[in-house]
Amino acid sequence: MNGSPISYSDQKYKVLGTRPIRHDGTDKVTGRAIYTNDVHFPDMVHGKILRSPHPHARIKSIDTSAAEALPGVFAVITGQDWPNLKDKIADLGEGAVNLSDLGENCMAQEKVLFKGHPVAAVAARSVHVAEEALALIQVAYEPLPSVIDVLEAMQDDAPILHESLRTDHLGKPGDQPTNVATHLQFETGDLDAGFAAADVVIEREYKTAMVHQAYIEPQNSVALWNEDGKLKIWTSTQGAFACRAQVAELLQIPLSSVTVTPCEIGGGFGGKIPVYLEPVAALLSRKCGRPVKMVMQRDEVFEATGPTPGTVIRIKLGATREGKLVAGDAWLAYEAGAFPGGMLGPGCMCVFSCVDLPNARVNGFDVCLNKPKVQPYRAPGATQAAFAFESAMNELAETLGMCRLIFRQLNAAKEGTRRVDGPIYPKVGLVECLKAAEESEHWNTPLEGAHRGRGIAAGFWFNIGLKSSVSATVNNDGTVSLLEGSTDIGGTRTSIAMQLAETLGIAAEDVHPKVVDTDSVGYTDVTGGSRTTFATGLAAYEVGLDLRKQLCRRAATLWECEAEDVTFEAGTFSHNGNSLTFRELAAKLPETGQPVVGRASISKDCSTNAFGVHLCDVEVDPETGKVRILRYTAIQDAGKAIHPSYVEGQLQGGAAQGIGWALNEEYFYRDDHTIANSSLLDYRIPTCYDLPMIDTIIVEVPNPDHPYGVRGVGETPIVAPPAAVAAAISRACGVRMRELPMSPPKLWKAIAEAKQTQA
Amino acid sequence: MNGSPISYSDQKYKVLGTRPIRHDGTDKVTGRAIYTNDVHFPDMVHGKILRSPHPHARIKSIDTSAAEALPGVFAVITGQDWPNLKDKIADLGEGAVNLSDLGENCMAQEKVLFKGHPVAAVAARSVHVAEEALALIQVAYEPLPSVIDVLEAMQDDAPILHESLRTDHLGKPGDQPTNVATHLQFETGDLDAGFAAADVVIEREYKTAMVHQAYIEPQNSVALWNEDGKLKIWTSTQGAFACRAQVAELLQIPLSSVTVTPCEIGGGFGGKIPVYLEPVAALLSRKCGRPVKMVMQRDEVFEATGPTPGTVIRIKLGATREGKLVAGDAWLAYEAGAFPGGMLGPGCMCVFSCVDLPNARVNGFDVCLNKPKVQPYRAPGATQAAFAFESAMNELAETLGMCRLIFRQLNAAKEGTRRVDGPIYPKVGLVECLKAAEESEHWNTPLEGAHRGRGIAAGFWFNIGLKSSVSATVNNDGTVSLLEGSTDIGGTRTSIAMQLAETLGIAAEDVHPKVVDTDSVGYTDVTGGSRTTFATGLAAYEVGLDLRKQLCRRAATLWECEAEDVTFEAGTFSHNGNSLTFRELAAKLPETGQPVVGRASISKDCSTNAFGVHLCDVEVDPETGKVRILRYTAIQDAGKAIHPSYVEGQLQGGAAQGIGWALNEEYFYRDDHTIANSSLLDYRIPTCYDLPMIDTIIVEVPNPDHPYGVRGVGETPIVAPPAAVAAAISRACGVRMRELPMSPPKLWKAIAEAKQTQA
Repeated sequence: MNGSPISYSDQKYKVLGTRPIRHDGTDKVTGRAIYTNDVHFPDMVHGKILRSPHPHARIKSIDTSAAEALPGVFAVITGQDWPNLKDKIADLGEGAVNLSDLGENCMAQEKVLFKGHPVAAVAARSVHVAEEALALIQVAYEPLPSVIDVLEAMQDDAPILHESLRTDHLGKPGDQPTNVATHLQFETGDLDAGFAAADVVIEREYKTAMVHQAYIEPQNSVALWNEDGKLKIWTSTQGAFACRAQVAELLQIPLSSVTVTPCEIGGGFGGKIPVYLEPVAALLSRKCGRPVKMVMQRDEVFEATGPTPGTVIRIKLGATREGKLVAGDAWLAYEAGAFPGGMLGPGCMCVFSCVDLPNARVNGFDVCLNKPKVQPYRAPGATQAAFAFESAMNELAETLGMCRLIFRQLNAAKEGTRRVDGPIYPKVGLVECLKAAEESEHWNTPLEGAHRGRGIAAGFWFNIGLKSSVSATVNNDGTVSLLEGSTDIGGTRTSIAMQLAETLGIAAEDVHPKVVDTDSVGYTDVTGGSRTTFATGLAAYEVGLDLRKQLCRRAATLWECEAEDVTFEAGTFSHNGNSLTFRELAAKLPETGQPVVGRASISKDCSTNAFGVHLCDVEVDPETGKVRILRYTAIQDAGKAIHPSYVEGQLQGGAAQGIGWALNEEYFYRDDHTIANSSLLDYRIPTCYDLPMIDTIIVEVPNPDHPYGVRGVGETPIVAPPAAVAAAISRACGVRMRELPMSPPKLWKAIAEAKQTQA
Repeated sequence: MNGSPISYSDQKYKVLGTRPIRHDGTDKVTGRAIYTNDVHFPDMVHGKILRSPHPHARIKSIDTSAAEALPGVFAVITGQDWPNLKDKIADLGEGAVNLSDLGENCMAQEKVLFKGHPVAAVAARSVHVAEEALALIQVAYEPLPSVIDVLEAMQDDAPILHESLRTDHLGKPGDQPTNVATHLQFETGDLDAGFAAADVVIEREYKTAMVHQAYIEPQNSVALWNEDGKLKIWTSTQGAFACRAQVAELLQIPLSSVTVTPCEIGGGFGGKIPVYLEPVAALLSRKCGRPVKMVMQRDEVFEATGPTPGTVIRIKLGATREGKLVAGDAWLAYEAGAFPGGMLGPGCMCVFSCVDLPNARVNGFDVCLNKPKVQPYRAPGATQAAFAFESAMNELAETLGMCRLIFRQLNAAKEGTRRVDGPIYPKVGLVECLKAAEESEHWNTPLEGAHRGRGIAAGFWFNIGLKSSVSATVNNDGTVSLLEGSTDIGGTRTSIAMQLAETLGIAAEDVHPKVVDTDSVGYTDVTGGSRTTFATGLAAYEVGLDLRKQLCRRAATLWECEAEDVTFEAGTFSHNGNSLTFRELAAKLPETGQPVVGRASISKDCSTNAFGVHLCDVEVDPETGKVRILRYTAIQDAGKAIHPSYVEGQLQGGAAQGIGWALNEEYFYRDDHTIANSSLLDYRIPTCYDLPMIDTIIVEVPNPDHPYGVRGVGETPIVAPPAAVAAAISRACGVRMRELPMSPPKLWKAIAEAKQTQA
């Protein structure tokens, strides 16, 4: 049940808030949209990767001679074919990146660090010949002890992944090899004084499992290393420019010699920001002089592309008897996977982000272990932290005997709240979301029946700003062609086009958006961080202003007045009794001067914030531990919902994924530290049979940092679900689950244990 | 022998005037460049056109049922499938166009007007099935009398092509059906007084043949009418935007619902401006829901795409004894082909364009007849006029007993000369070209041997300005990506990129130019009219200024000064002791603000003018009438030769084609008015065995209308050759040929007749 947004703004819009059909809709449903796998060249060959069977081993030798001799094989590469990236650091758009790690994640050099780690690659006439060739490559391994548990990996005697990683156990530079790559610490107020002032203190430990984004489309890329040294790449990526930068740096070639065409993308959720196949396909193409296509199988996706970390998080919270939070202490250990650099940072920033907490401390550890290198997954790091913190909030409310919703309202972060890592919130909408929850039909409908319970949790995520560029041209028929560099994952062609349409006073359908390659638009950061509708939309607004200015000049030419005297309102240019609509003026462009072309680019700090509150009703089958979601409502502050249907879609999609984390998803490891469930049959994501229709309530508290008040909405919806589901389960069967996933075997066991305890 | 340009400018350039390797060179020589025929879709089908066997006939009925029933046929269309375009006129960028005529040229409605006129089209699984289906279409024709001679077509009793074309015989609106579509008249000074003042008057009639551009790549197009009503076209065109406008108007759909991607083009020379296959493929695609590819065979190219007109031109010139021209009268009859609207206009404007003529009159007639509709061919209409006028000049010089070169110098058009159609020349370079000819080694080397002779002629062509747009983005590695809408036929990616490079003080190789589709760049007129390097180059200069301005602001941010105080010179930004090269500043962009994106669009009047002088030595074999070109020098004012090698290439290519017109090329008609030589075996274009290396001399008299002094150079070189060759033949064997082509049979006959007269 999706209603109209609850708006806290007086602003009236013509286009924003409507629900036009998405510009790419027809191509998507008729199969005309071009995905990377649709890219084809007559002389194209097919690449496959040989992967390590060991979770940790030294590579003693690789003999590729038999593979090279196989008829139909065009090229074979190993780590030896890569440039030397030792000690090379580069800023690829979002901070310093260790190129050596990034490169070794694509292909191992001396050691393999996880099962599935690439060790060699082949390009051949067909995929089948390539696979045959892989089988002919002889790799001599020296197996090494491995570690896959984050707490074990932090121990002194743990097997060490990177001999060169020398820090003390707090992540500070030290002498001893360690797996602790980073230690983060944030502190605000006086923690001891805070806890001293608390009437009630609880302290709990929570665990979450490593989970995968499970995008439907596996990684796939085509690379052509041209004779002129130019490298062309077609790929499924969330950021064509990020891909360009990574590939150029990994291959040590000039940035502008790489052109990346972002094809349609079948899901990414953060997992399609790093490169895996692109530089491998490029090196194969350079070696054989032909375009090389590489497509992962599902097991490769699970085993060797970035999942998001499992964690151990300890939360200590103190509150007064009246329900005022006075102190919080968080300790977080995040899996980094095989290489340093995980999701710890946002986890630490988000753990206390939903409350106004005067005294707080956060200690976080990013820990290497023999699993695939982790990558972002929708609000990276925040869901884990929220599962811990929001669960603790529910437990604390229970201890205080307070309504969980009222307890949250009492402590909600709001304008002026200082987050533990420093920033002070501008106008944000958590209070309004909690109010919407309080007034919702869901919250006010009693939940009846045995083994049923209702949960609530809040969630927070940033809108990173970064850089976006767009260009636009006015067509003589009154339409506008819009070029953008933002990969469209969730309908952003339309949400961006609508902002330009609003600015120009024309229909959404009269803007024709197009996502183009890295040569054809200005630099644009990744589609991620809930930034696209917010930041590229801002660029679209700016380009609208640029076009308006030029069109005012043109109208002034027609009316023989000054451009400054031409006014623009509601799509009409006017001066002194003369007036022309946008369409009418566009029709006059050919006869009155040069074509009207606009451009805009923005660089924006991370500044806006989106909050959500989720309500969840479940029924637990105590005989099996199976949880059925009865009802689910996702409430979120969208700032301004440009296209409410897409906001609803994001809320529903995020909730569905979060429920997956809550109930089923996990990397299931065998004793030999290989993954047992690397297929979509065994790695259980929710299907339509597992979920009810998810209700949504959009709240609109305008973002002061955006002319239309937009807040990015894509990531927040995944943050609250695990905690909301856990709270509902707790109410349904009296068992407080503190470990994800709350899968039937685990819940059944917990219920059984609880019964024993009671008995 | 190509030397350095003879420059009349002090301006020093870093990039302009150098000869970098063209940006698209590698892709062209390795076969990676994508031509339309390389465009492929999995479900693509193949279209073929059924063409009229008659030069003139009424279509009584078309029965397509058998074709439709053939297995593997997906769609069949006839004229009935087209929108009603009766009386529809549209401005497609370069003036009013009769849509009905344009549409009927693509597919006949009630009558066929030339052999090869399309009457139906089929889309099928393969070209072979499509051809089989064509054979099953039953068309009942009522043959009509036809006319293919321009003077006969002007007669009262001529067969009439268009009953609705009612003008008097002067092309003015009238009551009687006629074939005379247009009558143009220009007059300057007092013609009678002029001739009265003349000491010598000559009057001659000249004839030229219908010739074809004979581009190597035949017309070919792919169209996909998408389910969302959007039409995508990939095609070989000189103007993607012109193609878009034509297709949208012919199919009566919104302009912006059509996207045209201009693929690489294998020659155009003016012949690839009008659409032929594009709307047909689109209609077939709409009918069958699949992408449709259509590729012409060579005979279809000759018989049904626009050749350029044959003409009859009468010239009367008067001069004083001292060699001063005092009066000129020209009468021109130009073939329009099957529909009105030919090359008459520029022919009339160009006929007296090389001289300063105080008293002049031009009468021109554009005449319909049962031949394919004519189209531009490199300096359209001018070569025919120059053959007549320059030949008359040579005859007059002979009559006066003056040196042909001195006679031209005495009367040369120069700054301030008023052309017969009105415009007054700005600074132009004919005098300088004549001086270069006078001082050339060629002119000063005596030509010895029997049956040998030397000819000279001048030529003129415009640079149309029109509209061009470009966008550009600065990459962090100090390179610039440049988007342009101008199809690159002769190396304009590079000549345009070099102007941007010069403006930014970077290397030509550091600009990466790209020709993109109609959605991805601002409106840009056709690659034609010698406008591309001139006008799109001007846009590239303007976008350079836009980027410089933004970069000055960025440098000012870095140096904490005002943007106006930052100076830019020779690729370096400076202020008060600080300085950064373009590359250094580009590297600092990510950390200092938004991406730098530029855009520029221009709208320019036709204003600049390029003159050339050609010298030609021939040897005539009196036994066979065969002419051998011994030596050939093309001299031309390039204003500023951006890339001298490409200017030389244009001069050589134009001269080669002009020599083809002179000696061999013609549409050879059978008695039944069908074409006898519609293959490249029978239609004889010059090959490398027919021509010596053509020498070039570039003169640089800067164009006052362009910041770098550029003049377009592509078309002028075809104008002078026929007259120069005719003059050389006259000197070699004493026979004055006044009809093109001066092919062996005709020259042999003329020599034989001359011998008889002498005897």
